[in-house]
Amino acid sequence: MNDLSALGRIRVVLSRPSHPGNIGAAARAMKTMGLSHLWLVSPASFPDPVAEARASGAADILHGARVVDSLQEALSGTVFAAALTARRRDVSLARLEPRAAAAELLQWSRNGGEVALVFGNEASGLSNEELGLCALPVTIPANPAYASLNLGAAVQLMCYELRLAAMEEGGALLPAEPLPEPATHDEIENFFAHLASSIVASGFLDPAKPRRLMPKLRRLFGRARLEKEEVAILRGILSSFDAGVKNGRQIQ
Amino acid sequence: MNDLSALGRIRVVLSRPSHPGNIGAAARAMKTMGLSHLWLVSPASFPDPVAEARASGAADILHGARVVDSLQEALSGTVFAAALTARRRDVSLARLEPRAAAAELLQWSRNGGEVALVFGNEASGLSNEELGLCALPVTIPANPAYASLNLGAAVQLMCYELRLAAMEEGGALLPAEPLPEPATHDEIENFFAHLASSIVASGFLDPAKPRRLMPKLRRLFGRARLEKEEVAILRGILSSFDAGVKNGRQIQ
Repeated sequence: MNDLSALGRIRVVLSRPSHPGNIGAAARAMKTMGLSHLWLVSPASFPDPVAEARASGAADILHGARVVDSLQEALSGTVFAAALTARRRDVSLARLEPRAAAAELLQWSRNGGEVALVFGNEASGLSNEELGLCALPVTIPANPAYASLNLGAAVQLMCYELRLAAMEEGGALLPAEPLPEPATHDEIENFFAHLASSIVASGFLDPAKPRRLMPKLRRLFGRARLEKEEVAILRGILSSFDAGVKNGRQIQ
Repeated sequence: MNDLSALGRIRVVLSRPSHPGNIGAAARAMKTMGLSHLWLVSPASFPDPVAEARASGAADILHGARVVDSLQEALSGTVFAAALTARRRDVSLARLEPRAAAAELLQWSRNGGEVALVFGNEASGLSNEELGLCALPVTIPANPAYASLNLGAAVQLMCYELRLAAMEEGGALLPAEPLPEPATHDEIENFFAHLASSIVASGFLDPAKPRRLMPKLRRLFGRARLEKEEVAILRGILSSFDAGVKNGRQIQ
């Protein structure tokens, strides 16, 4: 069962964000993935028209944001918190990658609790004290030579993983659309018979020296998983060529 | 075996980007995940100080970017292209989500070919014609009520999936035996041009009433992921039909 309701119990917490543009980008990223609860700890500037502009169609997330003075306040009432960190610390951390972290966050949220995903300041990240408030450190696997993701991009990536985790049990991630009707076995065999006949008539296939030509063409069209309409189009094309070839033959 | 070298054969192509900030954000996103080849099709403004600022420490990616006039040029020399699309089309697409698409792109790249990941304009996306040039449509699973990811955020998300796919251990993604040589973008485009010309000559395709015939044929052969030898066979077949049609015309 898809349990997207679990996404509604996830707080995205930005601690001391410097750039209002990143707050707007985070709001937009959250909304595209179905998250809605934004918490801001001591933002440098909020509200701010730059945040509104970058939020695009997610202004509602901004307007509903909770502004607090400390990470402690933002985590109040939660049962579990994960924190993004790129840095190594004195105390080595059992860090998880985003996918595993999303699965664990979702597990807590599915269980009915409020959970938090915490992002630090753009330049300084989270303080050791802030990190200590969060049970699960998360590190995005990045290029060791340049691991500096933009804050909004990091929020996008984590919210994407949370959405995937929330949809996981449901199977298909994309909304189902009716598949085109596949060609039947007989229709496909009739097409191959027509194709062989046409390319013998055109002189391309010499039945005495078949050169594995038809097996190769079967392999090509087999990979495509032909649809009913496509077989009709291909046979129409062959018929139009047949007529030309037949006329050509008549003058010889 | 980690094969991060495959990331070096991936082009990130932004078609007609409007906002220089997004070009910078894309460059930064790419570098954090170890990608480096940025191609820009008719950018509204490039180079631009706003792009430099948003690229942060990834200015080298911007400075190495290739600027071209058409998506055709950006895809020249590639063997496989995937295109991000959120929209439904008249011709239904067998879309993949990012994880599966990244695995497929990596498979082609590991095999030694240049591949492309194409993103459309912020407001209008990719045109149908542009989408038709790419074998694999990719859709990010998003909130149906607000699916509008920022361009830079979408690039971040796809590059992250590509890095994960490149880091994945085990042979699942590696072909068990060398794959047949794929056809290049140019070979495939020449085939489509030949096909269109042949079925116009045979009378099957009326240029005045195209009936979405070529997009449907592009979709069919796009799913097949044509190989070099197959394109040669198909063009040989078309040439044999061309000769028949030409002879047929002469007696009329």
